[in-house]
Amino acid sequence: MKEKLTLMIPGPTPVPQTVLQALGRHPIGHRSGEFQEIVLRTTEQLKWLHQTNSDVLTITGSGTAAMEAGIINTLSRGDRVLCGDNGKFGERWVKVAKAYGLDVKVIKANWGDPLDPEEFRKALQEDQNNNIRAVILTHSETSTGVINDLETISRYVQTNGTAITIADCVTSLGATNVPMDQWGLDVVASGSQKGYMMPPGLSFVAMSERAWEAQKRSDLPKFYLDLKSYQKTVQKNSNPFTPAVNLYFALEAALNKMQEEGLDAIFSRHDRHKKAAQAGMKAIGLPLYAAEGFGSPAITSVAPDIIDAEELRKVVKEKFDILLAGGQDHLKGKVFRIGHLGFVSDRDVLTAVAAIESTLQLLGINKNKTGEGLSAATAALQ
Amino acid sequence: MKEKLTLMIPGPTPVPQTVLQALGRHPIGHRSGEFQEIVLRTTEQLKWLHQTNSDVLTITGSGTAAMEAGIINTLSRGDRVLCGDNGKFGERWVKVAKAYGLDVKVIKANWGDPLDPEEFRKALQEDQNNNIRAVILTHSETSTGVINDLETISRYVQTNGTAITIADCVTSLGATNVPMDQWGLDVVASGSQKGYMMPPGLSFVAMSERAWEAQKRSDLPKFYLDLKSYQKTVQKNSNPFTPAVNLYFALEAALNKMQEEGLDAIFSRHDRHKKAAQAGMKAIGLPLYAAEGFGSPAITSVAPDIIDAEELRKVVKEKFDILLAGGQDHLKGKVFRIGHLGFVSDRDVLTAVAAIESTLQLLGINKNKTGEGLSAATAALQ
Repeated sequence: MKEKLTLMIPGPTPVPQTVLQALGRHPIGHRSGEFQEIVLRTTEQLKWLHQTNSDVLTITGSGTAAMEAGIINTLSRGDRVLCGDNGKFGERWVKVAKAYGLDVKVIKANWGDPLDPEEFRKALQEDQNNNIRAVILTHSETSTGVINDLETISRYVQTNGTAITIADCVTSLGATNVPMDQWGLDVVASGSQKGYMMPPGLSFVAMSERAWEAQKRSDLPKFYLDLKSYQKTVQKNSNPFTPAVNLYFALEAALNKMQEEGLDAIFSRHDRHKKAAQAGMKAIGLPLYAAEGFGSPAITSVAPDIIDAEELRKVVKEKFDILLAGGQDHLKGKVFRIGHLGFVSDRDVLTAVAAIESTLQLLGINKNKTGEGLSAATAALQ
Repeated sequence: MKEKLTLMIPGPTPVPQTVLQALGRHPIGHRSGEFQEIVLRTTEQLKWLHQTNSDVLTITGSGTAAMEAGIINTLSRGDRVLCGDNGKFGERWVKVAKAYGLDVKVIKANWGDPLDPEEFRKALQEDQNNNIRAVILTHSETSTGVINDLETISRYVQTNGTAITIADCVTSLGATNVPMDQWGLDVVASGSQKGYMMPPGLSFVAMSERAWEAQKRSDLPKFYLDLKSYQKTVQKNSNPFTPAVNLYFALEAALNKMQEEGLDAIFSRHDRHKKAAQAGMKAIGLPLYAAEGFGSPAITSVAPDIIDAEELRKVVKEKFDILLAGGQDHLKGKVFRIGHLGFVSDRDVLTAVAAIESTLQLLGINKNKTGEGLSAATAALQ
C-alpha cells in the first residue's frame, strides 16, 4: 500500500514526525547567530550521547566519510595498523587504510562470527617496538548483524603498546552502550540515519586527546575531511564548510527526543527488541546468522534454510509493507536482516515477527509453527 | 519579526515550499527501486542543467567536497597546475592543490577584479613541454561578486597544451549560462544551496571524457571522494555510500521547477536581478565592489563608503527581516553582498534595494537620494 512502507533495514531508519518537521523548515544562514546556537546545543548533546568530554565533530557526509576522516587524520603513510575484518564494513576499512598507503595487518573472522579479542592481544603483545599505530574495527557489523567485543579489544590496546583505537560505531551508537571515555576509545565514527532517528547526510567523529596527539603527526593529504578545521570552527560554534543546515535542524530535534528518553532506556529498548527478534525467529524455525551471544542490538540477521531470503523479503514488502534488508555480497538470497535500530517500538518488532510468520504460512511453509514466533517475541518483550 | 527572515545571501538561498515538502517526506531505502528511479531522473536532469552528455555525479557534502573531488581524481602528486585566485574561493583551491602536493602556479588578480585571461594564455603558451596538467579556477567568485571569463580561459586551455579545465561553478551554475560541452569544460563543480533552490548538503561534479582519461592516471589517495566509485554506481542508478536521501527528494522537486522555468528564463531572470541590484545601489550612491562589467549574476557586492557595512546589514536584518551577506576576511565591515541567486523574484530584489534605501534614510544618511534606488531598480527590471 503506497506511503505505508515501514523501514526495518539498518538505515535509513524510521524518522519521527517532529524530526521530519524540523527538517522541512526553511534554511537559515549557516553563519548566523541562530545557527551557531544549534551547533552549540547539538555539540553538547553529541558529547552526552558519546559519553565523552572529547570533541565530537559533525560532517556533512556518510558514515564512511566519518570513519575515513578518523583514519586519515590520525595516521601517516606507511603506518602499521591492525584492522578487524568480519564483514563488509570491516572489509571497507581495510580498503580505506590501503588506499592511503597504510601497512595493514588484517585480523579476520568468518562472516557471522565475532572478532576474537585474543588475536588482537597477541598481535599487540608481539609488537615489541610499538610499530602498530592504530587498531581499526567495527563495533556492530551491519552486514552480518554481529556485535564485536569493542570494550575488551580497546582494553587490550590500552594495556599493550601505544596504538589508538578507531571504532566504527555507526550501528552501535545510540543503540547500545558505547561509553567512549570509560572504554578508552580514541576515534568513534557514527552516522545520522541509524540510532540518531534521522535521515542520512550527517556523520560524526569523536576524537580523544590521544587522537589529537596522533593528528599532529599525521601527514596524509586531506581538505574536506581535515578534522583540524572542524575542531577550530566548532570552538566558534561553526563549521569549516557549508553544512547541511536542514539536517542540523533534524539532528537537534532527534537529540532532544533521545535525551527525553534517556540513554539507559534507549539501550534497554534495543536490547529488548534484539531479544524479541531473535526469539521470534528461532521459534519460527529460522536460524540466526550471527553466532550465539553475538547478535547486534541494531540488526538481527536471519539465514532461512527453508526459503530464499529474497523471496521472503519480497512478500513481506508487498503484502505487509515492511522493508527488511537483504544479504550483502555472497549473502544475497541466503540472509535477510531485520533492522531494529533507532525510532523502533515494541509494536514494530512484534509486527515484523508476525509478518514474517504470516508470510511463511501464506507461502505454505512451516505450517505447524504459526503463532509460535509471535508468542516467543511477546515473551521476550516483557 | 520571527519566521519572516528572507535570505539574500549567496547560500543557503530561499527554498520553494514544494521543495521543503519533498525534503520532509519519510526517507526510503537508498537501495530500493523507488530510490533508483530518483537517481535516474535527477541524473538526467543534472545533465540538462550542465548542458552536457558527460557524467554528473552527486556527492553528499558541500561544494568544496565536489571541487576537491574534481582536483584529486584527475591529478597526481607533483603535477603542475595553474590556479586562478581573485578571492576567497580561488584561495581555497590553491590550498586544496597544495594540500595534495601539487605544484601550483598561482595567477592572481586583486579582490574585486576579474582574472585576466591573457595571463592564462601566456602561461599556457610558455609551457612548451605541456607540463601544466590542469587549470583550476572559479567562475563566479562568491566572496567578491566577480564573474571570471571562464569561456575565454577554457578556450585558451583547449588551444594551448593538454591541460584540463577544472571549474568551480558553485554560484554560477543555474544562474548563468555554463554550457559545459560547448565551452569544453572538463570538471564542473556545484552545490545544492545555490542556483538549485534547495538546502545545502548535496554537491555535484560533472566530468568530461578528458577528465576521465586524466582520472586513470591520478594517484592521489581518496576513498569517500573517489569519483570512480560514484561513476560505477550511478550507472546502476545508485550511490557508493548512503546518500542524503531526503535531499535527493528535494533535488528532484527543485530540478522539476527549474525545467518548468527553462534555462533561458532562469538565466535572464538572474541577469535582470543583477542589473536591478547594481542600478539600485549606484542610484543610492553606494559603490559596487566588483569591477565594472564583471558583476556576478548571483551576487552583487557593495562597498559603502558612507556607512559601516556591518551596521547597515544589522539594521536591514532587524528592521526589514532581510539577511544580506557580510564581507569575508579583510572585507568584513567594508563590503556587504546581496545574494540574488536561486529562488528569487523581482519582488525580492526590489525589496532588498528598498530596504537598503530606507535603512540609509532611517539612519539619517543619504537623505536626498531616497527613492532613487527604487526607481533605478524598477527601470532595470523592465
